[in-house]
Amino acid sequence: MSKFWFHESHTPGYEVKWRINSILHSEQTKYQKLSVVETEEWGRALILDDALQTTEKDEFIYHEMIVHPAMNTHPNPENVLIIGGGDGGTLREVARYKRVKTIHMVEIDERVIENSKKYFPSLACAFNDPRLTLLVKDGVKYVRNTRHKYDIVIVDSSDPVGPAVQLFSREFYQDIYNILDDAGLLVVQSESPIFYQDIFKFVNKNISEVFPNTYVYLAAVPTYVSGPWSFTMGSKKYDPLKLGSDRTEFSGLKYYSNYIHTSAFYLPFFIREMLK
Amino acid sequence: MSKFWFHESHTPGYEVKWRINSILHSEQTKYQKLSVVETEEWGRALILDDALQTTEKDEFIYHEMIVHPAMNTHPNPENVLIIGGGDGGTLREVARYKRVKTIHMVEIDERVIENSKKYFPSLACAFNDPRLTLLVKDGVKYVRNTRHKYDIVIVDSSDPVGPAVQLFSREFYQDIYNILDDAGLLVVQSESPIFYQDIFKFVNKNISEVFPNTYVYLAAVPTYVSGPWSFTMGSKKYDPLKLGSDRTEFSGLKYYSNYIHTSAFYLPFFIREMLK
Repeated sequence: MSKFWFHESHTPGYEVKWRINSILHSEQTKYQKLSVVETEEWGRALILDDALQTTEKDEFIYHEMIVHPAMNTHPNPENVLIIGGGDGGTLREVARYKRVKTIHMVEIDERVIENSKKYFPSLACAFNDPRLTLLVKDGVKYVRNTRHKYDIVIVDSSDPVGPAVQLFSREFYQDIYNILDDAGLLVVQSESPIFYQDIFKFVNKNISEVFPNTYVYLAAVPTYVSGPWSFTMGSKKYDPLKLGSDRTEFSGLKYYSNYIHTSAFYLPFFIREMLK
Repeated sequence: MSKFWFHESHTPGYEVKWRINSILHSEQTKYQKLSVVETEEWGRALILDDALQTTEKDEFIYHEMIVHPAMNTHPNPENVLIIGGGDGGTLREVARYKRVKTIHMVEIDERVIENSKKYFPSLACAFNDPRLTLLVKDGVKYVRNTRHKYDIVIVDSSDPVGPAVQLFSREFYQDIYNILDDAGLLVVQSESPIFYQDIFKFVNKNISEVFPNTYVYLAAVPTYVSGPWSFTMGSKKYDPLKLGSDRTEFSGLKYYSNYIHTSAFYLPFFIREMLK
């Protein structure tokens, strides 16, 4: 077996090692260090700035869970904006919905998209969708200046280091609020409530200061840091727990269902306590 | 910061490191290697045969989840048997219920109990409960020979290496079936469905061959391997999803609630697929 390992230091007291069989590609983009590796057990993995972003084998958990809860809370999401998500997994999930009419995607780093098309075809499979407008731009500037209005905005960011720092700020969430329709929804990945509790609470505070209703939901993603991973939703009108039944128009999901939708929003007491 | 790390090899491609500030105790018992360490971030941790068993900071998740779903599925659990669980955390959770009349606990390794009393007082706080009969014995032999009958049997084992191997066998589950009341419930920890999929499926198959109804539920435990951890329930009569409301008689839990109870049994599609 290979003696190469990819080593992640999550906190001062916790590190993880993934055995890798080969490094398929590595480059310094304008914004970040990007690597594509073949892992021993998880298929190919995308690594940005030394943090594992996604693997072929478990990416469906994160991508289904950042997309479908919001898409099934809003009764008729027609116009969707994705910030980040250059690997294409979030786009793939949004594109499943026939009722979506326009998808705008704003990714700052074109090299993430290009490498995903080359190395992760199962994620980058919806870039030819005719409803897509792909903008290689700074998402922070985009949401401040665009005149488009959206039903749903999804912030599929990397960790708050490098180009992604501003994607966790109150100002950014306020700009998103302003471009959402009166019944619009924002959803963001909000890190591990346990290993990155400060960021988790910071996101919740910032979204709560902007949106009338804030909801947190969880999913355990094996190749992210241990324990549950969190997503945070800001809503102008709709309550995700009022979902009556599964309204997805398609089959083939591997994680999300109407039962998982509701379950994910029920937080253990100790996580509820963090948010008081 | 300390340069000492505790290193866990979970699978050929995945390893975890926990920084430890000191080793408080280490011994070779009659059955296994036992260590107590002070971690950088999780308080004290108990390690058996090089596998992290429990930490002060997140033990409540595992212990609440191995006990309360069964205790709130059975309408009147009076006689409870715990196999293993020498650290006392499972006993502490069972002892919360006033309606429980007798608790039998069968732990093979007295040194686990003694060290837990010394180093983990917050776990080992119920060993003086007057309803407890503590037996330092082989649980496999005990369930084969006892004439007692139980409403609930909880198998709080370590991983299936060393003394715990037989605690995952069909024969063991059959012996438990025989000592359960007509409406009795068995619950076992059944490992990670992702990193230890073979064991997870093996337990499910074995319990399904013995009990008329088998249920799986999940909880993400940060200091166990990443992703969800599983528990498997064998039931003669009661359906855990028929729980109407939270019937716990006490407050102070940090993880379990009636909402978590129901949510935990809703499995993602890809885990349901493993069990077909």
